[in-house]
Amino acid sequence: MRAMRSVSIAIGIILGVVFASSVRGAPPNVVLFLVDDLGWQDIAVPLHAEPTETNRRYRTPNVEALAARGVVFTDAYAASPVCSPTRCGIMTGLHPARLHITDWIGHYGPADQPAPKDGRREHSVGLPDWNRAGLGPDDVTLPRLLHEQGYRTIHVGKAHFGSRGTPGADPRTLGFDVNIAGNHLGGPGSYEAADAFMADNPGHQVPGLERYHGTDINLTDALTVEASRAIGDAVADGVPFLLHFAHYSVHAPIQAHRSLVQPYLDAGLTPPQARYASMVESVDHSFGSVIATLERLGVLDDTIIVFTSDNGPLTAHSGPPTTAFPLKGGKGTAYEGGTRVPLIIAGPGVSTARTSVVVSVIDLLPTVLALTGHPDAAAHDARVDGDDCSSLLRGETTTLARGDEFMVHYPHYWWTERGPYDTPGIEPFTAIRVDGWKLIWFYNDGGRWELYDLVTDLGETNDRAGRTETRDVETRLRTRLLDWMDAVAAQRMVDRATGAPVGPTR
Amino acid sequence: MRAMRSVSIAIGIILGVVFASSVRGAPPNVVLFLVDDLGWQDIAVPLHAEPTETNRRYRTPNVEALAARGVVFTDAYAASPVCSPTRCGIMTGLHPARLHITDWIGHYGPADQPAPKDGRREHSVGLPDWNRAGLGPDDVTLPRLLHEQGYRTIHVGKAHFGSRGTPGADPRTLGFDVNIAGNHLGGPGSYEAADAFMADNPGHQVPGLERYHGTDINLTDALTVEASRAIGDAVADGVPFLLHFAHYSVHAPIQAHRSLVQPYLDAGLTPPQARYASMVESVDHSFGSVIATLERLGVLDDTIIVFTSDNGPLTAHSGPPTTAFPLKGGKGTAYEGGTRVPLIIAGPGVSTARTSVVVSVIDLLPTVLALTGHPDAAAHDARVDGDDCSSLLRGETTTLARGDEFMVHYPHYWWTERGPYDTPGIEPFTAIRVDGWKLIWFYNDGGRWELYDLVTDLGETNDRAGRTETRDVETRLRTRLLDWMDAVAAQRMVDRATGAPVGPTR
Repeated sequence: MRAMRSVSIAIGIILGVVFASSVRGAPPNVVLFLVDDLGWQDIAVPLHAEPTETNRRYRTPNVEALAARGVVFTDAYAASPVCSPTRCGIMTGLHPARLHITDWIGHYGPADQPAPKDGRREHSVGLPDWNRAGLGPDDVTLPRLLHEQGYRTIHVGKAHFGSRGTPGADPRTLGFDVNIAGNHLGGPGSYEAADAFMADNPGHQVPGLERYHGTDINLTDALTVEASRAIGDAVADGVPFLLHFAHYSVHAPIQAHRSLVQPYLDAGLTPPQARYASMVESVDHSFGSVIATLERLGVLDDTIIVFTSDNGPLTAHSGPPTTAFPLKGGKGTAYEGGTRVPLIIAGPGVSTARTSVVVSVIDLLPTVLALTGHPDAAAHDARVDGDDCSSLLRGETTTLARGDEFMVHYPHYWWTERGPYDTPGIEPFTAIRVDGWKLIWFYNDGGRWELYDLVTDLGETNDRAGRTETRDVETRLRTRLLDWMDAVAAQRMVDRATGAPVGPTR
Repeated sequence: MRAMRSVSIAIGIILGVVFASSVRGAPPNVVLFLVDDLGWQDIAVPLHAEPTETNRRYRTPNVEALAARGVVFTDAYAASPVCSPTRCGIMTGLHPARLHITDWIGHYGPADQPAPKDGRREHSVGLPDWNRAGLGPDDVTLPRLLHEQGYRTIHVGKAHFGSRGTPGADPRTLGFDVNIAGNHLGGPGSYEAADAFMADNPGHQVPGLERYHGTDINLTDALTVEASRAIGDAVADGVPFLLHFAHYSVHAPIQAHRSLVQPYLDAGLTPPQARYASMVESVDHSFGSVIATLERLGVLDDTIIVFTSDNGPLTAHSGPPTTAFPLKGGKGTAYEGGTRVPLIIAGPGVSTARTSVVVSVIDLLPTVLALTGHPDAAAHDARVDGDDCSSLLRGETTTLARGDEFMVHYPHYWWTERGPYDTPGIEPFTAIRVDGWKLIWFYNDGGRWELYDLVTDLGETNDRAGRTETRDVETRLRTRLLDWMDAVAAQRMVDRATGAPVGPTR
């Protein structure tokens, strides 16, 4: 029965026009456009069964244009409900649980801060040691692999691949030839160049953009100009390029894009809603500007474009219903709002389609390698946790061999200066989605399961864990989850008093 | 008596701290920051005897900071009431009347446009031939002279040195090593990158800034980033530089800087006033950003800074009283509002002072050559119409040998698509200021003189031409004006029917 449901979900794919590959036979460029904290509903492209109020609220015409000429994934996931694990997953194709990078990377490493954030006294369980400080020079990454193939590999924007002072804090450690404005930071002090991108928070100053200081440019626009310049340089030099354009926006602080906010206020949004909407639109403008640059330089048809996000939205600004609606929760949570994200891919060889096949951003590395014709694409596909989805993108198939499956491992307390985050679903968890069912283990208070049927209950309102009629499903998912945790050697939380592992058992 | 008045004006100078010259002995950098159409009153620094409403209206803290550490000229003049003649005068040190570039340069040369703009039938008098198409490769210019001394010479912004299709349309023809965004254009189609800097006016698209298109950056900010980058490159390469940073702003279209306009609206200004004020503030932000860049790179103390404008303000936006108040007229007019401009100079060797000595932007070439220690500074000072004012700037003297004297030659009808501009004072004229007296010849309707005593009547309300008590003054100024017209071979207007010269006579 579940298999049938899986098929019925998958046949949502609509095959369309296949873009002609470059007649030159040169490898295509790759633009990986990663927005920070952009929720599943935070674009005008409807990813739910029908358009929502949130879809109508935001103006993202350039993303809509991409959707019209590429593959739109309705059931795509980040690799984590927070940023660094997803980002490191994109870079490596490995699941964050295997990387042991399952929480956002602290700005300050162990040497700077005496107590591990998960070791605070109010929590009786936690990881036995630190979240890994981040990626390093030995990690096999997408930029390194493309660099070896003659690509110019360009990082623009937020990196957050490593703690301050570690090699991984510099994207060049990961194989990027060019790094513009990326380091250990997870968020900017300010989006305004007039504030030198820091305001009163010098520890959060975005680096490398000094020439913008004192002007009235928004960070998102400054990064766009830098990206456009880097594209122009690569095209002028006649080299294929990977552009990893990872905006800081729409991460907190939720600051109005001053040129764009007024129409949203005029339309009756609350000031926080309007500020957020202006950030969303600014990112769309940036995306459109990149597309226009590619077109102006005559390389748009030779460029694979990926548009996605690193996790679900912060919803504090949005008021009920949150902008994650119809999903439950948002950034940091175990629910769908935490990890389901927009994902649209277009470019040479990619068809026009809409699909509900379950994919994750860790599939991007093997997929991009295949699309660019990397000689070792198959070997890397076999090596990493992600899967090559290029056949799906080309319209040669409508399913993936692995079926409908996705896991998240977040054995952490969200640490904030105000203490533990008390939003429902923001607590240590490990979760699995299989064939439209979702099973979550929450570690707090001795642990508990929650089970949802996403097909009929996308909003995760009806917990069916422990019921007789779903016992088989629950057992199957629990077994699969534990098998997977063993397979990737996921770090286990331990009882701080005894050192004994805690968590789900078979 | 006039000599005494001249002295009393001149002693307004206040000697202050002399900045230490560079201990390295390297030639100083030069930043020539030229704002377009910025009026004498369009900054917060009071240049009149007392602060005006307009001074209080505008926020220009960075210009105020420059004024606090440099020489502030209260009686500085552009070389013309319109832009190209002033710009060509700055470049060459020659008076526009001698250059025969006395009107703004048409975008379209003779080949494009059948009738010379001054040859339209409704005017019975006009120049016998075209306003010169602009500067060319044989002109001895400030950038060429500094380039020969090893400077990197950088133009950023509006050029307008030559008609479209002529060599002078490219600033590199004039000796600039780098040209960013300058060509034949006198104004932008739009200040917004979202409009690709053209809106619906592709003939007025600012060139060379394609990478900004589609972002939400204002032109003024984009140019600032480019200027900052060029400064950084020069400093990194260890070469002294001339930065001619010539903003398009605050030229029409009077478009709000969207990030800056709201506080002016909130303060109760009319929308046109607020839009203009936001443009003024954006230019000040840009100036501050340049200063910050110089400071960050450790070269601020080695850099001569000049802040000025090319002519008086357009006043259509401002409503009565115009923002030129207490001056009469504005851009294009024969009155003080047409040509009196802010001029502030600071840097190594320059004192802190306020002076009413009459100077003009054509003095900048010999002055800058002297301040930079150019080996042929004296020869060029002798060759050009402008005078070396470096002794004044250093505080070694409080007067100039030539005394209080300034001329403007504008034998043109301001051509607009709506026909002749009917603002009082916007008509063909030649004028002279000597010792606080001002004599104007207007060519229309057979010609007439106007005479004003600027010391007691700065607003030029009381015409004293033809009166017995001022006959000696009038005769003296008329003689001096005609001698000067002969000396510089100023072009004479002619009667179109007969070809006979018309204009002032002895």
